[in-house]
Amino acid sequence: MAEQKRKFHRRPKSVEERGAVSAAVVRRLPRYHRFLGELLRGGTLRISSAKLSDLMGVTASQIRQDLNCFGGFGQQGYGYNVRYLYEQIGALLGVDEGYRAVIVGAGNLGRALVSSHMFERRGVSRMAMFDIDPAVIGKRFGGIPVLPMTAFSNYVKENAIDLAVLTVSKEAALTVAQEIAAAGVRGILNFSGQELSLPEDAVVVENIHMGDSLMMLCYNMKEKREGQ
Amino acid sequence: MAEQKRKFHRRPKSVEERGAVSAAVVRRLPRYHRFLGELLRGGTLRISSAKLSDLMGVTASQIRQDLNCFGGFGQQGYGYNVRYLYEQIGALLGVDEGYRAVIVGAGNLGRALVSSHMFERRGVSRMAMFDIDPAVIGKRFGGIPVLPMTAFSNYVKENAIDLAVLTVSKEAALTVAQEIAAAGVRGILNFSGQELSLPEDAVVVENIHMGDSLMMLCYNMKEKREGQ
Repeated sequence: MAEQKRKFHRRPKSVEERGAVSAAVVRRLPRYHRFLGELLRGGTLRISSAKLSDLMGVTASQIRQDLNCFGGFGQQGYGYNVRYLYEQIGALLGVDEGYRAVIVGAGNLGRALVSSHMFERRGVSRMAMFDIDPAVIGKRFGGIPVLPMTAFSNYVKENAIDLAVLTVSKEAALTVAQEIAAAGVRGILNFSGQELSLPEDAVVVENIHMGDSLMMLCYNMKEKREGQ
Repeated sequence: MAEQKRKFHRRPKSVEERGAVSAAVVRRLPRYHRFLGELLRGGTLRISSAKLSDLMGVTASQIRQDLNCFGGFGQQGYGYNVRYLYEQIGALLGVDEGYRAVIVGAGNLGRALVSSHMFERRGVSRMAMFDIDPAVIGKRFGGIPVLPMTAFSNYVKENAIDLAVLTVSKEAALTVAQEIAAAGVRGILNFSGQELSLPEDAVVVENIHMGDSLMMLCYNMKEKREGQ
């Protein structure tokens, strides 16, 4: 009986067996992927839920719940197989899709992003930057060329671009986003601070509202002071 | 009876009557604050939950639930008082606290942030930037001077700095964050991509993981394609 249980646990669940992963769990998966990636780069191949719990500041029972659908545990006491879990979560999140990205807006934010490791770590290729400012067109940042916005639509089609990182100003954002969608780009990572109302069937938008995070920080600082 | 109900609804609830707002609601409030701020700047003084629902892509019943604790509705059919709600949410979130911020790291990301409107819109003053690179020390970005990191601790004390925006590299992040906490800064807005394990009683950290958002975008693009 114990033998049978062990066997069952050792065999990873297939995608079919796994079934749907809830939206709430999916939202938490990038963080697991990030921590597992760091463990892997540091040479850790197995980790217990207790240790992962310590490291991530999440309860061990939450971790077991979240990762249950991935299988990939060893025997009781051996912990998770870090590489297996990292790869399974990556596959579920679309890391292996080979997406190709452009960065629209070659200002300070665009330059900061193009030089960051966030693309390669998630299997996304940075192909080009785009801007309307003649002063930056033709330059390179992080090895990536800045092309004129007039070339955008053709470039997207010729290079099968999947997603665009939008770093233009709040004021320009909606117009530029419409241009991006019209060119056939399927996803926008939106840093502009402007909510984009685009046809939902055409393009997927993920918003990064840095100002909202600033407000949450202010709130938590205020709450903490008042709690003292 | 109808008269009485109307009167009750017209009187805004006080902070004491309101009681605690749940953590989940608080997380959603910065977005309301942002939309209400834009309505206000556009001259809209009243809005129905149905219209706000359209604008924000949230159900009207969710909006009523979220904003219920703030009071500040007019009579049935007159909708929300935009300014009142904007100010109440701002006060709850700590917008009026007059927090003073420094930006640590004067690279591209630091420069992008210092020039954004996100600070002033949330009542936070940008005071100075800090860096260790002699090539940028002494320069100004968005009117804000770059000071040497060696002057950090004294500057924080002399200028009663409340929060720091951390834009240094992932590798430098933990060491610099420890320096920030040791100087007495109470909050860190962390853009470094590195989770910071700092003593929780000393400093509040809010993380912005841009890479996690990129993964969520990839996931949603993949899901959409598979759903088609």
